[in-house]
Amino acid sequence: MTDQNKFLLDENEMPKKWYNVNADLPRPLSPPLHPLTLQPVGPQDLAPLFPMELIKQEMSPERYIDIPGEIRDILAIWRPTPLIRARRLEKRLNTPARIYYKWEGVSPAGSHKPNTAVAQAYYNKKEGIERLATETGAGQWGSSLAFACKLFELECMVYMVKCSYDSKPYRRILMETWGAKVVASPSNLTDAGKAMLKKDPKCSGSLGLAISEAVEDTIKHENTHYSLGSVLNHVILHQSIIGQESKLQLKKAGEEKADVVIGCVGGGSNFGGMSFPFLMDKLQGRNKDLRAIAVEPMACPSLTKGVYAYDFGDTAKMAPVVKMHTLGHDFMPEPIHAGGLRYHGMSPQVSLLVDAGVIEAQAYHQREVFEAAQVFAETEGYVVAPESAHAIKAVIEEAKNCARSGEEKVIVFNNSGHGNFDMTAYDQFLHGKLVDYEYPVELVRQSLKNLPKVK
Amino acid sequence: MTDQNKFLLDENEMPKKWYNVNADLPRPLSPPLHPLTLQPVGPQDLAPLFPMELIKQEMSPERYIDIPGEIRDILAIWRPTPLIRARRLEKRLNTPARIYYKWEGVSPAGSHKPNTAVAQAYYNKKEGIERLATETGAGQWGSSLAFACKLFELECMVYMVKCSYDSKPYRRILMETWGAKVVASPSNLTDAGKAMLKKDPKCSGSLGLAISEAVEDTIKHENTHYSLGSVLNHVILHQSIIGQESKLQLKKAGEEKADVVIGCVGGGSNFGGMSFPFLMDKLQGRNKDLRAIAVEPMACPSLTKGVYAYDFGDTAKMAPVVKMHTLGHDFMPEPIHAGGLRYHGMSPQVSLLVDAGVIEAQAYHQREVFEAAQVFAETEGYVVAPESAHAIKAVIEEAKNCARSGEEKVIVFNNSGHGNFDMTAYDQFLHGKLVDYEYPVELVRQSLKNLPKVK
Repeated sequence: MTDQNKFLLDENEMPKKWYNVNADLPRPLSPPLHPLTLQPVGPQDLAPLFPMELIKQEMSPERYIDIPGEIRDILAIWRPTPLIRARRLEKRLNTPARIYYKWEGVSPAGSHKPNTAVAQAYYNKKEGIERLATETGAGQWGSSLAFACKLFELECMVYMVKCSYDSKPYRRILMETWGAKVVASPSNLTDAGKAMLKKDPKCSGSLGLAISEAVEDTIKHENTHYSLGSVLNHVILHQSIIGQESKLQLKKAGEEKADVVIGCVGGGSNFGGMSFPFLMDKLQGRNKDLRAIAVEPMACPSLTKGVYAYDFGDTAKMAPVVKMHTLGHDFMPEPIHAGGLRYHGMSPQVSLLVDAGVIEAQAYHQREVFEAAQVFAETEGYVVAPESAHAIKAVIEEAKNCARSGEEKVIVFNNSGHGNFDMTAYDQFLHGKLVDYEYPVELVRQSLKNLPKVK
Repeated sequence: MTDQNKFLLDENEMPKKWYNVNADLPRPLSPPLHPLTLQPVGPQDLAPLFPMELIKQEMSPERYIDIPGEIRDILAIWRPTPLIRARRLEKRLNTPARIYYKWEGVSPAGSHKPNTAVAQAYYNKKEGIERLATETGAGQWGSSLAFACKLFELECMVYMVKCSYDSKPYRRILMETWGAKVVASPSNLTDAGKAMLKKDPKCSGSLGLAISEAVEDTIKHENTHYSLGSVLNHVILHQSIIGQESKLQLKKAGEEKADVVIGCVGGGSNFGGMSFPFLMDKLQGRNKDLRAIAVEPMACPSLTKGVYAYDFGDTAKMAPVVKMHTLGHDFMPEPIHAGGLRYHGMSPQVSLLVDAGVIEAQAYHQREVFEAAQVFAETEGYVVAPESAHAIKAVIEEAKNCARSGEEKVIVFNNSGHGNFDMTAYDQFLHGKLVDYEYPVELVRQSLKNLPKVK
C-alpha cells in the first residue's frame, strides 16, 4: 500500500477505446420500440434524432469501440481525472475501509458530462449537422453540451427544467457564455411545452418533459439533431472512460481489486460509466463478490420503487419506448436540488443489471444526502453537487458497516461533479430550510397506469 | 516538442521546499515600520498578529524553506496542479507562440489561495491559536482560509468587502459551508467599520478597510490571529510552489526555458508565486532575457500609476507600514468585478522588482479583460475568474505580437482560479452592461497626500 493521496494518469495512459457492457450482459437488452407503432426501431427510425455513428454505437455488440483522436485531444484538457484516497473521511468515520473517489469535477463544465458531450458534438459535426437541441435538469448536461458545441462550432439550444432554471441562474449564464440559447421548460416554443403550461401554468418542469420539447424542436428544425446526456447506451459507452481510468489508478494505488463501486443514478450514465468497466470482471467470472450500488433520491426512486417495464423516455411520448425501471412517463418529481436525478426512467443497461441481481440500488432523502456532503466538505475539502452527494451518503453507510464488521473493504465511488452552482441548496441546508419529500406512492400508482401496452 | 496537451507531476514530485526571492533580490527590502512610531518593527511587534514561524518566514533571508509534511499532505488533495498547453487559443490567435497555463482552479476553493491558507492555518494551530480573522475581496481568499481552518479545526471570521458580499452570495455560502462566519465590510463589529459607515453609509468597501476590520478584530479577541491572503513575503513564499511546479512541467513539455511569465496582481501573491521561481534564474544571471509581466486593473493601477513609497497596508492605519507601489491607503477603488485586485498597495517584493526594472507592469480595463476571458472560454473551455482574465488579456497581446513578429516565444501564465462564482459579471458582460472605470487621477492625487511622513 502506498502513502500517496492522489493517483494520476498521464495523458497517453488515457483509454483509447470505450468499453461497451452490451458484450457482457447476462442476457440481451430488449429492443427499443417506436413510440407510435410500438414495433422495434431500426437505425433509420433514429436517424432524424442522431448521427448514424452514434446509432451504430447504441446498437453495437462490440466490447470495445475506438475513441477518435479528435475527441481524445479535447478530453485531454482535463482527463485523465484524478483518483483520490479519502483519508480524512476514513479517519472521521473511524473505518478500516479504504475509500477512493474519482474526481470528475475538474472538467470545464464541472462534471463528468463533457465526456459524452464532446463525443456527441464531434459525430454530429462530422455528419454535417449545424445545431443540437437538448434538455437539462440541474444544468450540468446543458453546460457540457454548450461547451462541446462551442469547440465544434455548432449552435446549441437548451431546454432547462424550470425549477433549475429559476434556482440556478449561474448555470444558465455559464451556458450562455459558451454561446448556447437557454429557455425554461415548459416553454412556449413547443407544442409539448404549451400543452403543459395550459394544464399547469406553475409547472416546475421535469426531465421527461424537457426531453419532449428538445425532441420536438429537433424534428421541427433543419440540420438539427437531438442530444441526450444520459440513459442511452452510447452515452454510457462514452462515460466508460471513467471506470477504465479508475481501474488503472486503483492498481497504481496498490489495490488488487475494488470490493464496492458506488455512483448516483438519474439516467444512469455516471454510475454506468464508473461501474461497468469494474462489472466487466464480475460478468466475466472474475471478482465475483464485487458489489455495485446505484444511489437514487427517495423523491424519484425508479430503481427501488419503480417497475421494470417498457415505457416512454419522455412525457409527450415522442422518444423511443425502452424497457427500463420507471415510475411512469407522467410522473413529475418534486423539485429536489439534485435536478440531474429527477428522471422517471433509467438506463436500460442499468435496469437489466438491477433486474438480473448484478447491481444493487439504494434511495436516500435529500437532507441526509446534504449531511453527507457536508461531512465530505469538512474532511476532503470539495463541496460537491447534490447529485454526487447521493453517492457519498451510500459510501458513508458502507464505510460505517466496515467500521462495525472490521472489514477492510476497498470502496470506490464516482464523485461526478462540483457543487459551485448549487450554493443555494447548501444555503437552505445550512439554515434548516431543506425539505424531504416522501415517496409519492399514489402519484406513481396513477402514473404507472399509463405505461404503453406492449405485446 | 511533445504533442501532449497537459503536463502533470506526480504527488512525490511536488516541491518539498518553498523558494524565497529575498535571497536573490538586487537590493534588500526596506524594513516594515510600526504604524504608530514609524520605526522598524521587530518580530515581537508582529506577534499579536502572526505566529512566530510565519514572522520568521516573513523576515527570512534563506533561499529555501522546508514545507512541513502535514501541509504537503493537504496540498496533495489537488496539487501538483496541471500545466496545460493552450493549443486552441494559439490556433485562434494564429500565433507561433507556445502558450502554457498553470491551472490553479482545481483546488477545493477554486483558486491558488489555499496554497498559503493551509500553511497559515497549520502554523497558527501549532502555536495554540483557536481563531483566525481575515478580510476577503471577491471571496477567493476568505473561502480558502475557511477551508483550511475547517481542516485544522480553527474558527474563521471573514470580513468580506461589501460590493463582493452583495454580488457574490455563493462565495459567502461556500465559506459558511466550511463553517466560517462572514460579515460585509464595512461592518458594525469594529470601530474602523463603524467610522466608515458613519462617513458613508453606502460605502462599497475596499480590501484596505476590510484589513483594518480584521486586524482590529484580532487585537480585540483572545487566542485570535490575523491572516492575510496576499502582499506579505511569507504569503508569496507559500505560493512559490506554483512557479516551481511550472518549471518542472515546462521541462516535461520539452521547453528549455520560458520567455514571458504573466500573472495578474492585486496584492501580488499569485503573480509572485508564479514568477519568482522563474525570475530566480534571471536574478542569478541565467535566462537574462526573461520578461515577467504583472497585470492589474485600470481602476486600481498601483504598479503603473502609483508611487513607490512607504504607506499603510490598510485604511485605518493599523497594519504595518511598508515600502511598496501604492495609490494611497485612502484610495477606494470602483467596484470592478475583479474584487481580488482592488487593493491600493502591492507586495513589497513585487514593488522592488518593478522599481528595479526586473518586472514589467500593464493595466487593462474590465471590458477588454472579459473579452479575453470569453475568447479563452471559447477555445480552452475554462471560464476563469475576472482576476485571472487580466493575465489572459496580457497573454493574448503578447501572442499577437508574436504573430506579427514571427517569434516563437514560450509564454507561461498563472490561470489562478475559476469563474464559477463570477457568473453575474459574465452575465453583465454578455448583455453589454459592464462598465469601464477611468483611472481616477484626482482621487489618487488626494489620496497620495496622506502617505505617512517617513524620515
